[in-house]
Amino acid sequence: MSIGIFDSGIGGLTVFKSVAENFPQLDIYYLGDTARVPYGNKSKDTIIRYSIECSQFLINKFDIEALIIACNSASSYAVDILKDKLNIPVIGVIHPGSKHALEVSKNGKIGVIGTYATINSNSYKKTLIQLSDKEIQIFQKPCPLFVPIIEEGMIDSEITKMVIKEYLQEIIEQEIDTLILGCTHYPVLKDVIKQIYPHLNVVDSSEVIIEDIKNLDINFNENGIRHIFITDESSSFHKLKDILVGDVKTEKIELSELCTL
Amino acid sequence: MSIGIFDSGIGGLTVFKSVAENFPQLDIYYLGDTARVPYGNKSKDTIIRYSIECSQFLINKFDIEALIIACNSASSYAVDILKDKLNIPVIGVIHPGSKHALEVSKNGKIGVIGTYATINSNSYKKTLIQLSDKEIQIFQKPCPLFVPIIEEGMIDSEITKMVIKEYLQEIIEQEIDTLILGCTHYPVLKDVIKQIYPHLNVVDSSEVIIEDIKNLDINFNENGIRHIFITDESSSFHKLKDILVGDVKTEKIELSELCTL
Repeated sequence: MSIGIFDSGIGGLTVFKSVAENFPQLDIYYLGDTARVPYGNKSKDTIIRYSIECSQFLINKFDIEALIIACNSASSYAVDILKDKLNIPVIGVIHPGSKHALEVSKNGKIGVIGTYATINSNSYKKTLIQLSDKEIQIFQKPCPLFVPIIEEGMIDSEITKMVIKEYLQEIIEQEIDTLILGCTHYPVLKDVIKQIYPHLNVVDSSEVIIEDIKNLDINFNENGIRHIFITDESSSFHKLKDILVGDVKTEKIELSELCTL
Repeated sequence: MSIGIFDSGIGGLTVFKSVAENFPQLDIYYLGDTARVPYGNKSKDTIIRYSIECSQFLINKFDIEALIIACNSASSYAVDILKDKLNIPVIGVIHPGSKHALEVSKNGKIGVIGTYATINSNSYKKTLIQLSDKEIQIFQKPCPLFVPIIEEGMIDSEITKMVIKEYLQEIIEQEIDTLILGCTHYPVLKDVIKQIYPHLNVVDSSEVIIEDIKNLDINFNENGIRHIFITDESSSFHKLKDILVGDVKTEKIELSELCTL
């Protein structure tokens, strides 16, 4: 028995890394749908269909005990549907991120950044309001240039700083004290964001999801297997994989294996 | 009988617009594979498979007389394979763009910009060398941030100008006098590029492909039908479609229709 993680491609590796470090004996199977990446610019219906296909692949193949959706766009639209459809626990990144933001925010003014899909879904907004026992204010902003900037490796450049200011200035002016990184790529920009806005609490789902996983009733003492699957060869995937998680066995599968599930 | 155009998504609309304006009576069927966009960050094998699926869809459904690949990444890897496989003429964007660049360049120093897939394929480099009867020098540069910047509508911003300079400065310093826009999105940035580097001949495939189409032995006097198909609903597709080609009938098809071809 084991745990499955899927993402549209690369960003979910930040979650994989964190889970692998925290649970060294857990068997972890990761699927990155690099043949159809990104999900964040796709429609709700398409994101749901892709999410079902990815989950089904991990369940059919590895009989996983729990599923982690390491993609904010997929978590935003598909978490409830997958919870209904599958007979195993399903954890998305929206709930842990929201819970933690409410814990650390002092003034109740919380910013959320992510892809168009994540922001348009209002998933963080709804979850924050539902979880909060007091009045809060939420300021959302889609930041679609962050992912290509990160995949270009322009982490600390002048362009990156300009783009960060261009996107964030308007929500900073609303006096937010907490910022949820609503995309699993964004932790890579965490340090630069903290440099520009040192007063912000920056919430990173890949860190805070660990608590939710600890509460699962599953077997954490397995063989420590780690196996990554991708639907397309991708040099940027391998580049980030090498940096984040090192030498983990990675295998390409055919997209038609997913399309027909 | 009719002509088919396909692209990974949105960029090919610049080609659709140009073909539609130049051949008002031609029946034109366009397929934008918005469910798997972009192609430029996918592998060679995957780009070839997607290109075959898109072509087969247009042929099976509309009995097209000729196929235009309005995507530089797909043209780079799939044009020869599709020419072999299909029984109709196939026109990519690489050949017309290269031919025109050789006509307008005075010093034989030509720059090529595009996605990683297009630049890594060396398709422009090979075609330019093959077509040229004199010594030329070619300077290539992948510009993966241009597409998301265009889709963000940041056409004339300071960030866009900085990114243009960041990418182009090194090939400008090589004293190129001609720049091939090797991605069908890039014509949207043509004016800004000309503002910064007014001495450059900027080659836009969507314009120069018209000559190759005129030479086809097909029936240009049909009913002037225009029909667009997309594999996913996409607000950025509709936004650019409205700007470029206006009120053309657009229909969503299921990705599984393509995957099983």
